[in-house]
Amino acid sequence: MTMTGFPDLNAPSRVLLGPGPSMVHPRVLRAMMAPPVGHLDPYLLHLYQEEQSLLRYVFQTRNAWTFALSGTGTSGMEAALANLIEPGDAVLVAIHGYFGERMAEIAAGLGAEVDRIQRAPGEIFTVEEIASALARRRYKLLALVHAETSTGAEQLHIAEIAAAAHQHGALLVLDTVTSLGGIPVKVDEWDVDVAYSASQKNLGAPSGLAPITVSERARQVIERRKTPVVSFYLDLKRYAAYWGEAHAYHHTASASLHYALREALRLVAEEGLEQVFARTRAHAELLWQGLEELGASPFVPLEYRLPPLTTARVPQGVDAHRLRLRLLEEYNIEIAAGFGALRDTVWRIGLMGYSSRRENVTLLLAAMRELLHN
Amino acid sequence: MTMTGFPDLNAPSRVLLGPGPSMVHPRVLRAMMAPPVGHLDPYLLHLYQEEQSLLRYVFQTRNAWTFALSGTGTSGMEAALANLIEPGDAVLVAIHGYFGERMAEIAAGLGAEVDRIQRAPGEIFTVEEIASALARRRYKLLALVHAETSTGAEQLHIAEIAAAAHQHGALLVLDTVTSLGGIPVKVDEWDVDVAYSASQKNLGAPSGLAPITVSERARQVIERRKTPVVSFYLDLKRYAAYWGEAHAYHHTASASLHYALREALRLVAEEGLEQVFARTRAHAELLWQGLEELGASPFVPLEYRLPPLTTARVPQGVDAHRLRLRLLEEYNIEIAAGFGALRDTVWRIGLMGYSSRRENVTLLLAAMRELLHN
Repeated sequence: MTMTGFPDLNAPSRVLLGPGPSMVHPRVLRAMMAPPVGHLDPYLLHLYQEEQSLLRYVFQTRNAWTFALSGTGTSGMEAALANLIEPGDAVLVAIHGYFGERMAEIAAGLGAEVDRIQRAPGEIFTVEEIASALARRRYKLLALVHAETSTGAEQLHIAEIAAAAHQHGALLVLDTVTSLGGIPVKVDEWDVDVAYSASQKNLGAPSGLAPITVSERARQVIERRKTPVVSFYLDLKRYAAYWGEAHAYHHTASASLHYALREALRLVAEEGLEQVFARTRAHAELLWQGLEELGASPFVPLEYRLPPLTTARVPQGVDAHRLRLRLLEEYNIEIAAGFGALRDTVWRIGLMGYSSRRENVTLLLAAMRELLHN
Repeated sequence: MTMTGFPDLNAPSRVLLGPGPSMVHPRVLRAMMAPPVGHLDPYLLHLYQEEQSLLRYVFQTRNAWTFALSGTGTSGMEAALANLIEPGDAVLVAIHGYFGERMAEIAAGLGAEVDRIQRAPGEIFTVEEIASALARRRYKLLALVHAETSTGAEQLHIAEIAAAAHQHGALLVLDTVTSLGGIPVKVDEWDVDVAYSASQKNLGAPSGLAPITVSERARQVIERRKTPVVSFYLDLKRYAAYWGEAHAYHHTASASLHYALREALRLVAEEGLEQVFARTRAHAELLWQGLEELGASPFVPLEYRLPPLTTARVPQGVDAHRLRLRLLEEYNIEIAAGFGALRDTVWRIGLMGYSSRRENVTLLLAAMRELLHN
């Protein structure tokens, strides 16, 4: 029995201005057209070395353990926590949005004793707030989101927070899903212990890989665990054995996704990180100014507003979801609803990677203007 | 600072005749060229419905919980075990090769009390052996590999084994990584509780997705857990909420990989499962005959020899690894070494999906003939 009736793929061409995925550069799509090689092919293993160099460049680190995991950003979050946490460990999670909540939930699921400190959505922590929480108990690690995708706020003072964590004997796990490749992430200078990200945001590759980097301090904690890592799939020691000289089989990594991520990283490296940050910021500022003019002013104060992802207040009397759907259906533009408590009151607008272009800002603002005035 | 010196991608064109990934049909590569849409885009959510229909077709099931997980086959294995097992559960693993070992290791890592029964590599179990092991203790589940990628043996009698498991109150978790889409996998008729696979073998898509299907019986066990699933990333209830009508955000699935898998499944459906199985078997038989003539006879007896993946004995006096490397370097043909104890004594040759073509069999045998006679 054959089964027919499934039409040719006919995917719409979206202008992706949501919280990710962002748009994929034609060079990245082209790289994915290369027929895949095997997961132990010498060519792919050589490519990993280049990919590692490029990942170290964007993470601004020399960490030996710097890989791209075969999963989405959430797999990076889970890997960071699952490799460090053993049952009964005390963990402090500083939560300023949904993804901090998610870290706390995953840590609790791993058997950690989780303490939370919390700021309202759109706010960030002071160093003092975090330092005083760290002083209350001996924590194995502090988990924190650098760029909250749910609120558009950038947690500042990461170097000072890392220093406070280390002073109190805790490691710092930093979620850089929406910051890496969009704003500075200085893993070594800031002394972050584990940072992870996702391929489909500022890096501009399709989703499916999670870049991660692990400090020597964190690596030693992992090496000295008393219990095995509960996840075989996300076991970083096994990753190190596969990416390292032993090239020990662990799982069948996707050559296609690595072709794409390497090309996306190469685009970042060619443009230069500083230039990428400047472009991301310049287009965000254009967006912010246009939003103010539309009466949809940014939700987060300028001081810690995140250039790659803006939350914009929905003007009084406007149906947030109707406008968002009309942008998608009539203009092929994707923006996102707010998250949780902000669901009906803000939009989330991303300008990341190849989506961060002048023409996209102009188009979005013009389309919003048309819809708001009709 | 920019960073240059990384050359254009220049991937070799391999004839992939190892244990996977297999070759990718040009239509599948073309599908991946479509610019990605968002993970909540109505188009992608519609595509999931078609993908589910196609996955149910290849799994031969009506199971509501039939998805493709955002990870490789190993993530499917971990998801199957992590969603069913709670700490202290008794689990029986019937091991006839490396991937059975891996199931036992993952189950133990999840806190199960693991009992093993074992056959030598290349052998399979009788129904009686498994039934008598099931009688020894009340097991929550029996874990078993249908097609052992490490040995090339097909575990027969799955329906009888499932009946024995159910008679003893155990669920059956079946690894179909190297069987799905290559030989019959009749999830409903055999009454298998959880079966998982991988996108890059007989299905012929790039790696990165793990098809999985869950029976109503297993779904209820998952719904009634006393403890949460330790993996947030591989939590099947969250998958059901994302693929189901709620479309609740869980992770940023890769549109590119789903475009590819849907197209690969569409190719299977157009050809027809029965025809795919016949083609896979016919090309395997040609290979087996040619290997006999080369003095590299198949390792596994014909009765349970696996068409998609053949283990061939390395002829006396031949350096297994040198020949394998020469095939790769001089002919661009990938085959694999043996696994574990068989490392130096067999080759593993895959003829799966788009790799299962007459010209590939002829080429491989001719190339081997040239190398064996030089």
